[in-house]
Amino acid sequence: MLTIADKTFDSRLFSGTGKFASDSLMIQALEASGSQLVTLALKRVDLSGGQGDIYGPIRDLGVNLLPNTSGAKSAEEAVYAAHLAREALGTRWLKLEIHPDPRYLLPDPIETLKAADQLCAEGFVVLPYCHADPVLCKRLEEAGCAAVMPLGAPIGSNQGLKTREFLQIIVEQASVPVVVDAGIGAPSHACGAMELGADAVLVNTAIAVAGDPVAMAGAFRQAVACGRSAYEAGLGQVSAEANASSPLTGFLE
Amino acid sequence: MLTIADKTFDSRLFSGTGKFASDSLMIQALEASGSQLVTLALKRVDLSGGQGDIYGPIRDLGVNLLPNTSGAKSAEEAVYAAHLAREALGTRWLKLEIHPDPRYLLPDPIETLKAADQLCAEGFVVLPYCHADPVLCKRLEEAGCAAVMPLGAPIGSNQGLKTREFLQIIVEQASVPVVVDAGIGAPSHACGAMELGADAVLVNTAIAVAGDPVAMAGAFRQAVACGRSAYEAGLGQVSAEANASSPLTGFLE
Amino acid sequence: MLTIADKTFDSRLFSGTGKFASDSLMIQALEASGSQLVTLALKRVDLSGGQGDIYGPIRDLGVNLLPNTSGAKSAEEAVYAAHLAREALGTRWLKLEIHPDPRYLLPDPIETLKAADQLCAEGFVVLPYCHADPVLCKRLEEAGCAAVMPLGAPIGSNQGLKTREFLQIIVEQASVPVVVDAGIGAPSHACGAMELGADAVLVNTAIAVAGDPVAMAGAFRQAVACGRSAYEAGLGQVSAEANASSPLTGFLE
Amino acid sequence: MLTIADKTFDSRLFSGTGKFASDSLMIQALEASGSQLVTLALKRVDLSGGQGDIYGPIRDLGVNLLPNTSGAKSAEEAVYAAHLAREALGTRWLKLEIHPDPRYLLPDPIETLKAADQLCAEGFVVLPYCHADPVLCKRLEEAGCAAVMPLGAPIGSNQGLKTREFLQIIVEQASVPVVVDAGIGAPSHACGAMELGADAVLVNTAIAVAGDPVAMAGAFRQAVACGRSAYEAGLGQVSAEANASSPLTGFLE
Repeated sequence: MLTIADKTFDSRLFSGTGKFASDSLMIQALEASGSQLVTLALKRVDLSGGQGDIYGPIRDLGVNLLPNTSGAKSAEEAVYAAHLAREALGTRWLKLEIHPDPRYLLPDPIETLKAADQLCAEGFVVLPYCHADPVLCKRLEEAGCAAVMPLGAPIGSNQGLKTREFLQIIVEQASVPVVVDAGIGAPSHACGAMELGADAVLVNTAIAVAGDPVAMAGAFRQAVACGRSAYEAGLGQVSAEANASSPLTGFLE
Repeated sequence: MLTIADKTFDSRLFSGTGKFASDSLMIQALEASGSQLVTLALKRVDLSGGQGDIYGPIRDLGVNLLPNTSGAKSAEEAVYAAHLAREALGTRWLKLEIHPDPRYLLPDPIETLKAADQLCAEGFVVLPYCHADPVLCKRLEEAGCAAVMPLGAPIGSNQGLKTREFLQIIVEQASVPVVVDAGIGAPSHACGAMELGADAVLVNTAIAVAGDPVAMAGAFRQAVACGRSAYEAGLGQVSAEANASSPLTGFLE
Repeated sequence: MLTIADKTFDSRLFSGTGKFASDSLMIQALEASGSQLVTLALKRVDLSGGQGDIYGPIRDLGVNLLPNTSGAKSAEEAVYAAHLAREALGTRWLKLEIHPDPRYLLPDPIETLKAADQLCAEGFVVLPYCHADPVLCKRLEEAGCAAVMPLGAPIGSNQGLKTREFLQIIVEQASVPVVVDAGIGAPSHACGAMELGADAVLVNTAIAVAGDPVAMAGAFRQAVACGRSAYEAGLGQVSAEANASSPLTGFLE
Repeated sequence: MLTIADKTFDSRLFSGTGKFASDSLMIQALEASGSQLVTLALKRVDLSGGQGDIYGPIRDLGVNLLPNTSGAKSAEEAVYAAHLAREALGTRWLKLEIHPDPRYLLPDPIETLKAADQLCAEGFVVLPYCHADPVLCKRLEEAGCAAVMPLGAPIGSNQGLKTREFLQIIVEQASVPVVVDAGIGAPSHACGAMELGADAVLVNTAIAVAGDPVAMAGAFRQAVACGRSAYEAGLGQVSAEANASSPLTGFLE
């Protein structure tokens, strides 16, 4: 059971809502994922409740919403978006994303900490997307963030855990939950993140662009569960040499 | 559903029986793994049916047995062991292992092909353990082997898929099932092998030496299932750049 | 020819002075390295000019000095150390290092940018050690830093280019020289950093703890030179398939 | 100084002659490489000495020739090519290559050993191209081969040392020189192969297809030299944690 701020989650797979071919496919995939926390860009919420609004169908799933500030290029823009999101969706929960560069969408450490400081002070439950920078994660934690969301690789790249060595350090040092976000491109990556001790992962692109997004969502659900089980069961040591699994000494003496 | 020779399998996780702290732990782990094909070293079968025999308890599980020739250093020794195994266990199925070097336990390509030629001709269902050598795998297939079992890394090393690029080629070229054997040290490795198109994996050490082998067996069971699902669902492309999962153009215009 | 601020360098290998078994070995290694920029911790400079001072011998080499603020845990401490260093060594050049955590010695992005802002304004030539965070590197550049020094892996770990994907982005986006610092454990790592377009590398531990530090310094000198040559000569594409280097079509027709 | 059979070499970089844009570029690159052993496909030798013959210009370089059997798909074809090569080029030296599959050009372990057996018995100095299979390398050595040439990755792929763990074992176990062949795509790869203890490397595609093949040949020359120096100087240990290169305890007490 994972606890973040005042909520508990049975599922350690969080999902995103972008890039799906249709809203109905998105809803089916969210159901198959078993996710209890779902992020959506504020821009996709039609504040007037008109057509094209994805908020209604997602709300009907009964999941917790995690509005994000995707598109914000500064702390100021992110804070503004946070306020709108709280108003529109009635939640204090927020995925804080600030990425000034449109090509790699990498998060800005300075603006992110600045916005986190302010939003935590205002009572938001802040989950910041950040580089896999162990010192920054500690600072975000000290600012009052409810969790940290370090990246595995650039958003949507499907490259996997390119920051593995640093994620390991973050997990070792963190006092709040660590949610690996961005770059996870296959269930094996999600499983690997859980094996090294992450508390949860957030997946979007890898599910949305799969040949069969609903089946892929189910695969990620299992992958996160088994990665967690493996972490709890205790993985064996890696060795440079072989170790016979079958008895070898002497041949059928 | 996986078919090898005349048998079909619901589970794509095959298990080994070495290195467990006790026989009862081994039996529980085998049950938790859901494996329907279980390998055991001929040496561990007490041909007189006395104490210390592991054959009885495994047989009672109702799984298919895959005796192996672990310890054999030449084709001649392997063929001899195969004959004993067929006699003792009443099965034509055989995991052919020939590894002359005791430190890394790497398989001998020449002796393995030689033994495979003979044993296939004699009617054995031969599954050879071999290097992740695509040409050798084709030759073993041409010799009549029912599957090929290329390694991910040295036996018992838990290093994972060190031969990934070559496994990919083997999967692309093989006309018989490809079972990744040796080196798989974590569920994420097993999942990754399935994602790249392997038909099954064989795991032993990573389960046997885990802190909780029974829980780890369950984790591997899930990992293999979700890796297969992901392969069938179609994984997305990996890209060097980021691809926004949330809409970005303009900030809340 | 590499230019940083107002200086030009023939050599793209910068060296550190810590961990050598003796000062005379350090001096010989520095000579063998061909380095024209050498970093030293302010603590190692005996401000009274007494015994144990390493400043004298290094100065006699005729290299440029790059005092560092190693040990500083905050911007304030780093600025204080910078002032002392300028006074003691008569140079405005500074390697800015702020790492609050003693285990992994990873740099603090917030304090580093804060100190960089102030020191650049005061006229220092600031080369900040930082995480391989492309956005942070841009911010440090905007603050007026003369170069950025992203890490390959934790200091002294010899792990190599664990941040390769991010270094590539930093090189692509930077308008100031990029000096890969920390983690480089072998000449092949230094060569690889230069091949991906880094302007220079800083090496310390890998030379100091080598079996023969002087020979290793010479190896790094060559490695940096040939990595740069390769970058300039234009590396070939990597492909998933083979491409015959010898003509194949038909056998001796 | 490297010794193979009855010859000694100052240079540990061997070169190939395929894929160059022109013969004159090839000759210049060979000169820049400093190679003393150069491989060429028998097909490229005009046995009548007419136009398009590359043998003449290469011979004039004063290097040792290593004709190869590229294109041979069986031991029989390779032996036939070996005889022609000996006749045409007046050398007993031979790079034995047998690759039945045109897509990945991976070597056939069975046919290669068979041809090696025969050619060694006939007095050839055989250097076989083979998979990075430690057991196969031992068998080729026992057959009388003068060196072994395990691959880093498929020929011409520029992927680098994908077989690193196995090359390490081959180097540890071999009693004849180990020449890493195929897949080396950058000087850092060649340097890395030498650092792990290879005796030499063979490079072709990475030089021939570079933007400036002559400069790239020079870069490889240096890379091999410094990788060897590093191996001899003794590389430091890799650690999971940081190790301060500058003194840290207490800040300017």
